[in-house]
Amino acid sequence: MSQDKILLAHGSGGKLTHSLIRDLFLQRFKNPILESLGDSAVFGIDKGRMAFTTDSYVVDPIFFPGGDIGRLAICGTVNDLAVSGAKPLYLCASFIIEEGFSQAELRDIVRSMKEAADEADVQVVSGDTKVVSKGSCDRIFITTSGIGLLPDGVEISPLRIKPGDQVIISGTIGDHGIAILSKREGLTFQTEITSDVAPLNHLVSSMLSEAKDAVHVLRDPTRGGLGTTLNEFVNNSDVGIRIYEERIPIREEVRGGCELLGIDPLYVANEGKLVAVVAKDAAERILASMKKTIYGRDARIIGEVVHKPRGIVTLATQIGGTRIVDMLSGEQLPRIC
Amino acid sequence: MSQDKILLAHGSGGKLTHSLIRDLFLQRFKNPILESLGDSAVFGIDKGRMAFTTDSYVVDPIFFPGGDIGRLAICGTVNDLAVSGAKPLYLCASFIIEEGFSQAELRDIVRSMKEAADEADVQVVSGDTKVVSKGSCDRIFITTSGIGLLPDGVEISPLRIKPGDQVIISGTIGDHGIAILSKREGLTFQTEITSDVAPLNHLVSSMLSEAKDAVHVLRDPTRGGLGTTLNEFVNNSDVGIRIYEERIPIREEVRGGCELLGIDPLYVANEGKLVAVVAKDAAERILASMKKTIYGRDARIIGEVVHKPRGIVTLATQIGGTRIVDMLSGEQLPRIC
Repeated sequence: MSQDKILLAHGSGGKLTHSLIRDLFLQRFKNPILESLGDSAVFGIDKGRMAFTTDSYVVDPIFFPGGDIGRLAICGTVNDLAVSGAKPLYLCASFIIEEGFSQAELRDIVRSMKEAADEADVQVVSGDTKVVSKGSCDRIFITTSGIGLLPDGVEISPLRIKPGDQVIISGTIGDHGIAILSKREGLTFQTEITSDVAPLNHLVSSMLSEAKDAVHVLRDPTRGGLGTTLNEFVNNSDVGIRIYEERIPIREEVRGGCELLGIDPLYVANEGKLVAVVAKDAAERILASMKKTIYGRDARIIGEVVHKPRGIVTLATQIGGTRIVDMLSGEQLPRIC
Repeated sequence: MSQDKILLAHGSGGKLTHSLIRDLFLQRFKNPILESLGDSAVFGIDKGRMAFTTDSYVVDPIFFPGGDIGRLAICGTVNDLAVSGAKPLYLCASFIIEEGFSQAELRDIVRSMKEAADEADVQVVSGDTKVVSKGSCDRIFITTSGIGLLPDGVEISPLRIKPGDQVIISGTIGDHGIAILSKREGLTFQTEITSDVAPLNHLVSSMLSEAKDAVHVLRDPTRGGLGTTLNEFVNNSDVGIRIYEERIPIREEVRGGCELLGIDPLYVANEGKLVAVVAKDAAERILASMKKTIYGRDARIIGEVVHKPRGIVTLATQIGGTRIVDMLSGEQLPRIC
């Protein structure tokens, strides 16, 4: 079965590298731009504003309920482009693989990447593979980068937030983090908790089509969770955000998992959710447009932008109190993405 | 001294991540696009042909004579863009760091990245940092991706190679691979062998300014070395390449190192060299333009494109024989880049 293992020579740049590229990556990601196999992908582009981003994915375990590192690596980067307001176009993927890693698992991961790329309607146009010796990395790390174009008139920035704006979350929070953690810790629940990992670009398109100018800021609350993302919106600004605990959608089993693990769901990573701050007068329309899409069907308005306290996120609790939601300090869940 | 160590929390997405970004990455890479700190970098772009590429850097050791993983990560991606004929514009950088890694070393690496980026005249506009637990990666891996624009009329492709074309190497071969290997193995030579790691975009600019249409193909012979790169040019094509051993520039100490290690310099990685195939009638002019630049001053014509044998690279040896230069098989030097 040694033929099923990734060898150091697969990363040498020589014959085995070429066969891995030809038989796996080209085969799977099949497109004319990738097939030219130059040192860079080359394609035509229109004048305009471009978004460019990168993320490394080191999730552990690499296969988890609802997804795997491959789907995560595509969706994560697609989502970073989408929440910038851009239409994602092209991705690159770079693999760091531990010697001895299973080629069958690599094929599964690459297939999953291709499926996610198809769903998001993006192409993987360039890549790289490095193999390191046994023990020099934990199985496989994938770094994806992506580019997209911003439609005219889209202006997504925390600077546009103003009092009265409504805060929308596209669905339940904490699913990804708790799915990973329960798999890692061997916890079982009556209903399996699955990751929400999904490409959000079509959801963003719907929102922008509905009311382009009214979408002030968007972000996907991954590491650090909803709590940290909301803080990023208002820290150093002269407005605050107030959210209402009772409105925040959260699955019963995720809530249970959080209680069991002693974790606040506000800080748990999501990989298929976005939080939007939108103009008040367009909020209901935008919400309705979200609810028509597969990844926005549980969207809810969970709060609003307030004058005071400035620079701070507050939570109105179910029992009638108010507490400050700070940025996550320390590491809650390592290698969640 | 524990404050000098990278902690898992530096990768959490929370407070420590934000302070690392603010105090190190923003501080160093300072530019308005990066400073907006959105999920993607956003910038204006002209209509045209774009090049997009990515590479992961896992070099061991991370500091070596002539450079470090940071300089390598910038130059490698700049060079992939440059040899596509593109003018590199923007880079993203993604870090995977082992828990406990020295913050001082990270600062050194980032400073070195900034210096290389300045030399290449590119900006680092977005990034990501993941921290994995002790033992889950070997110190630090960096993945960079980059975009650039291709000037009109530049057409770099192995498909353009034709018999009579001249093969040019921009300088001595094998310096990077032997520098890494001697450091790793603790070999010492009378003269220290230093890596050639350097950004080649200004060199490529000079060549294209001299005779844009005459530059048929360019590539930087990194992993797999000159031998593998030349094979990539002609494999599956109906021409061959013939090179002359006596014309290939190689430092005495590198030749000595190769002999000692039992390695063929034709397969040793370079990180500051390019090989070009150019139209015969423009070859001398292009060579002269290369020799005027810092990284092209030792450039030489080392061979030509021939009718036969097709699809194969042959080497005329110094003792008058001919041998086939195949693509590298197996792994010669793991983690060379």
